[in-house]
Amino acid sequence: MITVNENFLKLRAGYLFPEIARRVAAFAAENPDARIIKLGIGDVTEPLVPAVIEAMHRAVDEMAQAETMRGYGPEQGYEFLRRAVVENDYRPRGVQVETDEIFISDGSKCDTGNIQEMFAVDNVVAVADPVYPVYVDTNVMAGRTGRADDRGRYEGIVYMPCTEDNQFVPALPGEPVDLIYLCYPNNPTGAVASHDQLRVWVEYAKANRAIILFDAAYEAFITEPDVPHSIYEVPGAREVAVEFRSFSKTAGFTGVRCALAVVPKGLKAWRKDGTAVDVHPLWSRRHCTKFNGASYLSQAAAAAVYTDAGREQVRRVIELYMDNARMMRQALQQAGYTVYGGVNAPYLWLRTPDGMASWDFFDRMLRRAHVVGTPGAGFGAAGEGYLRLSAFNHPERVREAMERMARL
Amino acid sequence: MITVNENFLKLRAGYLFPEIARRVAAFAAENPDARIIKLGIGDVTEPLVPAVIEAMHRAVDEMAQAETMRGYGPEQGYEFLRRAVVENDYRPRGVQVETDEIFISDGSKCDTGNIQEMFAVDNVVAVADPVYPVYVDTNVMAGRTGRADDRGRYEGIVYMPCTEDNQFVPALPGEPVDLIYLCYPNNPTGAVASHDQLRVWVEYAKANRAIILFDAAYEAFITEPDVPHSIYEVPGAREVAVEFRSFSKTAGFTGVRCALAVVPKGLKAWRKDGTAVDVHPLWSRRHCTKFNGASYLSQAAAAAVYTDAGREQVRRVIELYMDNARMMRQALQQAGYTVYGGVNAPYLWLRTPDGMASWDFFDRMLRRAHVVGTPGAGFGAAGEGYLRLSAFNHPERVREAMERMARL
Repeated sequence: MITVNENFLKLRAGYLFPEIARRVAAFAAENPDARIIKLGIGDVTEPLVPAVIEAMHRAVDEMAQAETMRGYGPEQGYEFLRRAVVENDYRPRGVQVETDEIFISDGSKCDTGNIQEMFAVDNVVAVADPVYPVYVDTNVMAGRTGRADDRGRYEGIVYMPCTEDNQFVPALPGEPVDLIYLCYPNNPTGAVASHDQLRVWVEYAKANRAIILFDAAYEAFITEPDVPHSIYEVPGAREVAVEFRSFSKTAGFTGVRCALAVVPKGLKAWRKDGTAVDVHPLWSRRHCTKFNGASYLSQAAAAAVYTDAGREQVRRVIELYMDNARMMRQALQQAGYTVYGGVNAPYLWLRTPDGMASWDFFDRMLRRAHVVGTPGAGFGAAGEGYLRLSAFNHPERVREAMERMARL
Repeated sequence: MITVNENFLKLRAGYLFPEIARRVAAFAAENPDARIIKLGIGDVTEPLVPAVIEAMHRAVDEMAQAETMRGYGPEQGYEFLRRAVVENDYRPRGVQVETDEIFISDGSKCDTGNIQEMFAVDNVVAVADPVYPVYVDTNVMAGRTGRADDRGRYEGIVYMPCTEDNQFVPALPGEPVDLIYLCYPNNPTGAVASHDQLRVWVEYAKANRAIILFDAAYEAFITEPDVPHSIYEVPGAREVAVEFRSFSKTAGFTGVRCALAVVPKGLKAWRKDGTAVDVHPLWSRRHCTKFNGASYLSQAAAAAVYTDAGREQVRRVIELYMDNARMMRQALQQAGYTVYGGVNAPYLWLRTPDGMASWDFFDRMLRRAHVVGTPGAGFGAAGEGYLRLSAFNHPERVREAMERMARL
């Protein structure tokens, strides 16, 4: 008799975005004339830049000729792209990453979801709260948790609250943890971690033989000069951290699909008996066994982001989004809201007025301002009392949304 | 202390294709003038057809305009592609598959590798021998096996020998099994299973509450009219089978990446306590949590395969490869070889002469004919004494390879 992985049955319904969609659809049906502005889902709105478009057309033409067509590529990704990442993203910041430490994939959701497969089921996982749900759900499926409580917290996971008091960078856990998910610039709070704050985590991981899974998907949105873009800017991080990066938000690739993981060759985990095991060959084996490489077109497109023209064009799109974020921050502060983020990340984390519950404030915004956000409670218990606003939209729509919210 | 998933350490080295590459490179270095013809790896050689190229250019242009650009798509795949699959691949053969039973992905390697996550670790897995190694390796990683013996057979897996005696369709296992991997048209033997043979398996699965994972990646290469293209052509299969299909070989998408899995809504598995659980929502949850949709460009390209022009163009490319296969089969038989497959599949399964070991014959072919095949032993113990030849190459090169082999 074929039996199911009963850990899947522990998963709470993925209620956040479907529930938002349901409420928005119901409101729109009752109010067909309302011009709803969506600042909820973190999806890009600007088209791909010309350098990327040209590279994709060229790649398509290559596929039309036997002499230049590309079949199976290396599972790890084409050397041309891995080299471009090293030379543009890491070397200029003084960070040592080798091309064969980079694994190109079709998305950071896959990478951050799959990475846990390499580790034993009885490791203790620590996540920030609020958190990107994929980190948690994939560990639930793997059997590293018990059931969820009423607030949605799974037994066995160590939740590290990120609050105004700690500037949304969690304190070290009071109990031993083995696998630590950190995301900076942060989704959903928009906070960043300083060198000193990351150093504390790297030292903790070294001292406790833990591994940090560092999600840097939003690093391109950093505007302040002294904020680290990579955890590897902290000495010793190569020994304890995997890093994830994505072209999705950086270059508008949410529909194109290309991302990467960095697994340093010095990174170790251990057998139960204490013998050290290199993590790089484990991930290489996992990647090559269960993945057949990202599309050649996506990789050619990603490489174009690193050309002179591509870099400049992408920079301008990011500036457009960050101009939105700045405008939103100013408008909301002037209207009397308490707001975090939006300086080094495309997300703003808004405290609900008068201690309203996230969903109540969501409803009020929808009904009275026709603006859609994402209730903070959807990202975890510590997100209650907040709402996430995304800067991914056209500037004129963002401006109008802010005017409406000021009148709320 | 972060501990590794020690099941990964049970994996034998992925020695097959790297070892082939090593031997070919060594020979080429010693014999720089030898014109080596590769019929080893099953990668396509013909370019993408014009209808697909045009669709991809159009899709790239859509991504260049804010009005038409596509960000995150539905994780399950665009409706336009899922509908095209139903209307072209299934409905004309009288097979009931609904669009929401189709999950578009970036490759069958991923799908056949990931599908096992839904099931408990203590299920017994049955695979054909010889076998596509991904089925086995992903179950090793998940912990469903013990260690491998000297022949590479993992403890706990039920290997079902596919031999000349059973026409390379395995007999029912003598012991209870829960999860059964079948692949027809078969990689590596090129064999097909008849309706009657598949019916035996479907009835076995129903009677034993097992699930069949049916890999139909090569169905487009079937030339004989009475060979089933889908396991769902067998009555009752919807209750016991998942099916995998791919655009990789069908339409030359090995570098583009697009495939699909069909998970029927009636398919059940069970909790340990015997309660039935629907599999479709489990796979949907897995797919949406760990995957963010296939590239829009790949999906637009795949949809073009179903246009009138695309269908006709793809048919001609498949005919080219199958003309190769027919030519190979005739030439090898005339030269006195015993050869299977090549009629409904792009692979030929050649018995080595005089009972030679697979690797010895591989070496003889390489040294004396400068032709590269794949040793059957690399696909499993029952593949010893065979060699796989792929029909994916340009006709003139295939013809020359056969002339050289006739002179062996």
